[in-house]
Amino acid sequence: MRAVAIAGIGMTPFVKADPRPIAELAAAAVGAALVDAGVEPREAGALYLGNFVGEVLTGQGNLANMTGAIAGLGNVPCTKVEGACASAGIALRHAVLAVASGATDVAVAAGVEKMSEADTTAVTRALASAADQAHEGGSGMTFPGFFALVASRYLHESGATPEHLAMVASKNRSNGAGNPIAAFGKTVSPEDVLASRLIADPLRLLDCSPITDGAAAAVVVPADSDAGRAPGAIRVLACEQVRGNTAFYQMDDVCSFPATRLAAKRAYETAGVTADDIDVVELHDCFSIAELVDFEDLGFAGARAGWRAVAEGETALGGRRPVNPSGGLLARGHPVGATGLAQVNELVRQLRGTAARQVPGAELALAHNLGGTGAVATVTILAR
Amino acid sequence: MRAVAIAGIGMTPFVKADPRPIAELAAAAVGAALVDAGVEPREAGALYLGNFVGEVLTGQGNLANMTGAIAGLGNVPCTKVEGACASAGIALRHAVLAVASGATDVAVAAGVEKMSEADTTAVTRALASAADQAHEGGSGMTFPGFFALVASRYLHESGATPEHLAMVASKNRSNGAGNPIAAFGKTVSPEDVLASRLIADPLRLLDCSPITDGAAAAVVVPADSDAGRAPGAIRVLACEQVRGNTAFYQMDDVCSFPATRLAAKRAYETAGVTADDIDVVELHDCFSIAELVDFEDLGFAGARAGWRAVAEGETALGGRRPVNPSGGLLARGHPVGATGLAQVNELVRQLRGTAARQVPGAELALAHNLGGTGAVATVTILAR
Repeated sequence: MRAVAIAGIGMTPFVKADPRPIAELAAAAVGAALVDAGVEPREAGALYLGNFVGEVLTGQGNLANMTGAIAGLGNVPCTKVEGACASAGIALRHAVLAVASGATDVAVAAGVEKMSEADTTAVTRALASAADQAHEGGSGMTFPGFFALVASRYLHESGATPEHLAMVASKNRSNGAGNPIAAFGKTVSPEDVLASRLIADPLRLLDCSPITDGAAAAVVVPADSDAGRAPGAIRVLACEQVRGNTAFYQMDDVCSFPATRLAAKRAYETAGVTADDIDVVELHDCFSIAELVDFEDLGFAGARAGWRAVAEGETALGGRRPVNPSGGLLARGHPVGATGLAQVNELVRQLRGTAARQVPGAELALAHNLGGTGAVATVTILAR
Repeated sequence: MRAVAIAGIGMTPFVKADPRPIAELAAAAVGAALVDAGVEPREAGALYLGNFVGEVLTGQGNLANMTGAIAGLGNVPCTKVEGACASAGIALRHAVLAVASGATDVAVAAGVEKMSEADTTAVTRALASAADQAHEGGSGMTFPGFFALVASRYLHESGATPEHLAMVASKNRSNGAGNPIAAFGKTVSPEDVLASRLIADPLRLLDCSPITDGAAAAVVVPADSDAGRAPGAIRVLACEQVRGNTAFYQMDDVCSFPATRLAAKRAYETAGVTADDIDVVELHDCFSIAELVDFEDLGFAGARAGWRAVAEGETALGGRRPVNPSGGLLARGHPVGATGLAQVNELVRQLRGTAARQVPGAELALAHNLGGTGAVATVTILAR
C-alpha cells in the first residue's frame, strides 16, 4: 500500500435548509474539492459517497451514481457507503484504500445529507434506524434518549454535573460562531444551555446537534504525485474503520464506545504517533455528552475524567488540545452523512494554517466519526 | 493486485415473505457462505453488504454492522454499499478489491433485501428512488413504466413481438421451476405470459420479476491460499463496476445500457476472454425485455438481434449459451439488494458442476447486475 494525501477539500455551507436537490448538493462539494485539488472531474477514478437517510428523507436512492453524473466524473465506479452517522468517515477510508492500493490515482470521498425535507419526527425516526430495531426499536428509544442514558450514567459515576455538559456545548457553539460555514452562528453561554428546553433528561436543546443540510468532500491522491506534493496537500497517516456494539444491551460500559477505542489504537499504531502528539481534534459531538466520552475513548483522558479537560480549558481554542474548533456537530451542524468529511475539511484547513479559528502551528490532527450506538467508528490522522 | 477466488457461497431460499428481521436474513447467508468456505467468522477481515431499500421498507439502517455482529465477525470494517439493484454486484467487487489489494485475506460479500414488510405501492415507490427523482420523479415514472418504454421501442425497431418477450419469461420461469431456492416454482408457457394481467403495456404480470425476500453471500480469498486452491474454489477473472446514465433523458438509445457495454468490455479485457468464450450467463432480467437488451449489451448478439437467440433456443438450457439457468430475477425472485450475489451463487454451482439445472461442462461464467435506469452495471467473470 502506498502513502496517500488529501489534495483538495470542498463543502457547502451547512444550513437549516438548502434548496438544492440532494445529488446537486453532493456534487457541489465534489466540484469544490476537485477545484481545490486542481484536478479535472474526468481524472477521478472513483467516487465514494457517504449518505445515511437520503432515501428515507428525500426519496432519492442511487445517490453516488447521480452525484458522479452531475459532477461530471467519467464512467467510473461511484459507490454509496452507509454506516449511519459514520458514513462520510467510511467514504474517506474507501477513497484512501482505492488510492493506497493502486486501484486508482485519484479518488473522491464525499458525504451528503438533506434533512430539511421532512419534519422533526420523521428525522428522529429515520435516525433511529441506526440502532437495532429488531431488539430495541420496540422500546421507542431514539438517539436523544440513548445519549441521555449515557449522560445520566456518566454524571452518576464521574462527579461531573450538567454544568460540564453545558460547558462543552458553550465551547463548541462559540467556536462555531466564528466559522462562516457553520449552521449555528451564535455564541452561547453555559447558562444559555442550562436554560434551554429539556429534550431528554439531562440533555437540553443546546446539548443536541441541530438538523442540517449539507455536503462535504475531499480528493485523495498518492502522496508522491504532483497533487500530493503541492503546498496545500495534507498527508493521511491513518484511516481506520472498526465495528463495535450494535445495540445498547451489548454495552458492558455505557460510558464508552469500544469501536472508538480500537479505531484510535489502530490509527495511532499505523501513524506511529500517540494521543499526546495530536495538536487538534474534530470529534463526534452529536450531543455534548458524546464529546466527553469520545475524548476519553480517543485516549486524551482517563475514564470519567474527560469533563475535567473541558472545565480546565484544555479543549478550548488556545488550550493545550483544542477540540472541535469548527464548532463540531453541535454548532457546524450534523447533516449526518456528511459530518465525517466536514471534520476533515476543518482539519485540512487547520493543517494548512487557513482555518477560521486557527490553532497556531497545528501539525498533527485527528478526526473521529461515530455511527449508531457505537456500531462503527472511524479515526483518521492527518499531518502537514 | 493478486488473483482472487470465491471459496464459499451461501444464500437463503428466496421467498415471498421471510419472517426473520433483515439483519438476521443477511447474517444467515453470510454464515452459510463461511461454512461452505471452511472459514471461521473471526477469520473474515471485512464485510461488504449490498442493500438498496432496507431503511425505507424495514426501518433498519446501519445494516452491515448489524449483520457483522449477528454473523459473529470480529471488529472488522463492515460496510453497506448501495447502487440500487446492482448493490450486491458492487459488494462483490469491493470484497474482491479488498483481497486483491492485500487489505485482507478473507472478505465477505453479501446482499440482502426484505420487501415483504411493505405493500406493493410502497415497494414500487421505494424502487423508483433508483431513478432521478429531481428531474423525472414528477412524471410519476416507475420501473415497470421505464422498462415498458424500452420494450415498446425495442419491439418497434427490432421486428420482435410480445411473443418473444413471453418466450423469455417462459424460459426463465421454467428454469426456476427446477431450482429449489427460487421464489416462483411453476413452469409457465408463453401463452400463460401473454394471458397474464397487463402491468405497463407491453409488459404483463409474468414479464415482471416478483417482489421477494432473501439474502446471498460469497467468501473471497486469495487464489493461492489453501481455501482458494480447494476443489470448490472458483476463480474471479474480472469484476468491473461502471457508472452509466442516471436518467431516461440521458439515453441516446433507449434500447441499450452503455454501463453494461463498458463493464462487459472491461471485464472481457481483464479476463482475457471474449463473449464467445462464455459458457453460462446470469443476467439482470428484472423484466423480460431486460434480458434481450442485456444479452445484446454483453456482446452475445448484435443490436436488436437478441430476440432471435431466445426464439432459436440459443439461451435455453441445452442451447449454445444458456442464460439464467437459475430462473433469473423473473423466477428466482428479485430481493433487489441480494440479486447480484444470487447470480454468483448460481454460477459458482454451475462451475462446480452442482447446479440444480446444470449446464454440462461449464468452465467460464458471466454475471451481470444492473441498477436504476442503467446508472450502474457490474460484470463479473468466473472460471473453474
